[in-house]
Amino acid sequence: MTSESWVAGSAGSGFGVDNLPYGVFSRRGELPRVGVAIGAHVLDLAGLAAAGLVDDRRWFASGSLNAFMAAGRAAWQANRARLTELLTDETYRDRVEPHLVPRADVELLRPVEVADYVDFFSSEHHAANAGRIFRANGDPLPPNWKRLPVAYHGRSGTVYVSGTPVVRPCGQRFTAPGEAEPSYGPSLRLDFEAEVGFVAGVPSPPGRRVGTEAFRDHVFGFLLVNDWSARDIQSWESRPLGPFLAKSFATSISPWVVPVAALEAARVTPPAQDPPPLPYLRCDEPWGLDLSLEILINGHVVARPPFALMYWTSPQQLAHATVNGASLRTGDLFASGTVSGPKREHRGCLLELTWNGTEPLDLADGTRRAYLEDGDTVTIRATAPGATGAPLSFGEVTATVLPAMP
Amino acid sequence: MTSESWVAGSAGSGFGVDNLPYGVFSRRGELPRVGVAIGAHVLDLAGLAAAGLVDDRRWFASGSLNAFMAAGRAAWQANRARLTELLTDETYRDRVEPHLVPRADVELLRPVEVADYVDFFSSEHHAANAGRIFRANGDPLPPNWKRLPVAYHGRSGTVYVSGTPVVRPCGQRFTAPGEAEPSYGPSLRLDFEAEVGFVAGVPSPPGRRVGTEAFRDHVFGFLLVNDWSARDIQSWESRPLGPFLAKSFATSISPWVVPVAALEAARVTPPAQDPPPLPYLRCDEPWGLDLSLEILINGHVVARPPFALMYWTSPQQLAHATVNGASLRTGDLFASGTVSGPKREHRGCLLELTWNGTEPLDLADGTRRAYLEDGDTVTIRATAPGATGAPLSFGEVTATVLPAMP
Repeated sequence: MTSESWVAGSAGSGFGVDNLPYGVFSRRGELPRVGVAIGAHVLDLAGLAAAGLVDDRRWFASGSLNAFMAAGRAAWQANRARLTELLTDETYRDRVEPHLVPRADVELLRPVEVADYVDFFSSEHHAANAGRIFRANGDPLPPNWKRLPVAYHGRSGTVYVSGTPVVRPCGQRFTAPGEAEPSYGPSLRLDFEAEVGFVAGVPSPPGRRVGTEAFRDHVFGFLLVNDWSARDIQSWESRPLGPFLAKSFATSISPWVVPVAALEAARVTPPAQDPPPLPYLRCDEPWGLDLSLEILINGHVVARPPFALMYWTSPQQLAHATVNGASLRTGDLFASGTVSGPKREHRGCLLELTWNGTEPLDLADGTRRAYLEDGDTVTIRATAPGATGAPLSFGEVTATVLPAMP
Repeated sequence: MTSESWVAGSAGSGFGVDNLPYGVFSRRGELPRVGVAIGAHVLDLAGLAAAGLVDDRRWFASGSLNAFMAAGRAAWQANRARLTELLTDETYRDRVEPHLVPRADVELLRPVEVADYVDFFSSEHHAANAGRIFRANGDPLPPNWKRLPVAYHGRSGTVYVSGTPVVRPCGQRFTAPGEAEPSYGPSLRLDFEAEVGFVAGVPSPPGRRVGTEAFRDHVFGFLLVNDWSARDIQSWESRPLGPFLAKSFATSISPWVVPVAALEAARVTPPAQDPPPLPYLRCDEPWGLDLSLEILINGHVVARPPFALMYWTSPQQLAHATVNGASLRTGDLFASGTVSGPKREHRGCLLELTWNGTEPLDLADGTRRAYLEDGDTVTIRATAPGATGAPLSFGEVTATVLPAMP
């Protein structure tokens, strides 16, 4: 189906012509603009538009993808088809090549101006492990868990692009078992959560729900999310209204947004749902996504969570989040919750990997981790089956932990 | 101190020259602009600016207060001082009068472009009543409640200005005790929550906290909030991550933002805090606010909650929300949580007023309410002691419940 691109090295790079993820970049001293990853290059869409090679309605000379995301599915399809044509047909090469910028020469910026940020809790393995750790004697899953995709709102103002350092948060927490009172200080149980998110492009009106069948009409694409979490702050503050400061200091996202259309070959049947969900959560199409995640601490792989095993799918999450008539805005970000699987090496956060610090993790450099230390760099990568057979890359979301501020 | 304004009827109206709340308004066919309430008029600040009567750096010909709020405290003080001069000095009358628009001739719009929306839970009476209703055999307050101001993030994309109807939300809920499974349908326990909010004007950088002493440097003003709540959806969905769809369908705010500077005469000593809060939550100044709220259903007063009794004050809430290094953006909205007091007539929501529907409320028109019915109009008003002795008005936040959509 998909031809190879004339861009040298793009085939097999994870950023072939079957991927074409969108991002925002800047070159030294220049204003941000929209680009697409191809091989080791960024294709400058604002430059292509200025040269008359792609349609542009003030979409691409922009500091975010939001204007293009708001344009809707027909515009997304047309742009993707045109870029495919430009990048595979040798006759365009001379005109397009001037708009290819080596990735090493640009800074990748936050791709999306985030409107609201919703974080789900949709991995059964993660939810059950968390339940076993925090409620040792009860049912590992809360009673609502298989009836609806549990979620909460996070802080959209602290969503940062990959590469932005994360300052260790301070707050109230207990520092040892049996303490009578919490104290104030830096979190001692700083964790990551490996997640996959999607961003809405097309708004929806108040009072109307967005059914599972309308997912593709509203959602522009997928990206990687690290939902940084301070476990000690979280366990103390969360009753009865859920996590707040334990999450609100920082959320990291990858710079590339992979279009929904690039993920057709990644779609798989999700796990069977028992009990069957209520009609508003039913989905006629298989919307499991066979993404392979990889988590690294300081360059050492510590887990490989399988996204295909997520219990609740993305269209179900969107249908649930809007079933009460909550409207969508361009830039709404929905994250999956920690991605975990049945095996230890599938677990997507240190809470699970070290069983809340009781089983420290040995890194390949000989050091051990119960929770994150200052200076640690956490990287999450993912690939998906691509249309050409070769895997398609999500790139990565990475960030280094800085010490708490005085 | 404060002189009277030459605007006829402004003294004693609640919108005298000691108040001067900011809002955004439009006249038929015109673009939105910033105005200030004075008596029964709106003073058109964009018009004043065009006439060279007030300093304006692209603040006032705007669809929101955000640009002016971002300008900072010195700009807020200078503008307030200048408006006071223009409205009290008769010699300005001829030049200012053309910019007074009768309130009846304008539409009041949402004053703030909301960045993140945080909702607290800071009334001890409300928290304890909720605890007694939902956890009959336990301590009414969660163990963290007197140590920190509990809060969660709400949905900023569904914050609507007063007057915008609210569609009854649908979702999963139980319709009768003893049901084995939840069903899908319109909420049967739709409630209001009478709250007072504040909005941040000046951002703060990531990783730095905003101490209680810096409150006035960041916060522009206060307004009224109705945090609509679907109690049946809430009680089922909230474990373990807190409320989501029960709140995210709509939050209503009043159109006028009362400047912090207008509330000096309203400041009172808040309730004593025992145990003493951790140092980062201590506040050298008294920041209780003696606001008198009034809640009406279809024009009948059902409660009069006293804001002066709130356990956690606004500067404490802001210091807590940023203690983990979460940055502030212009437009961040922080709501107090339901305002309730020790008496039945002080309770700020139907959950408490009807004890979760078990003690229905008799309205003066002979009807009864366990929870809200379609067509009900809920109005929240407030006044505060003003600098002149006469009360200063917050105006109102009002909205009518529309039936659920099919």
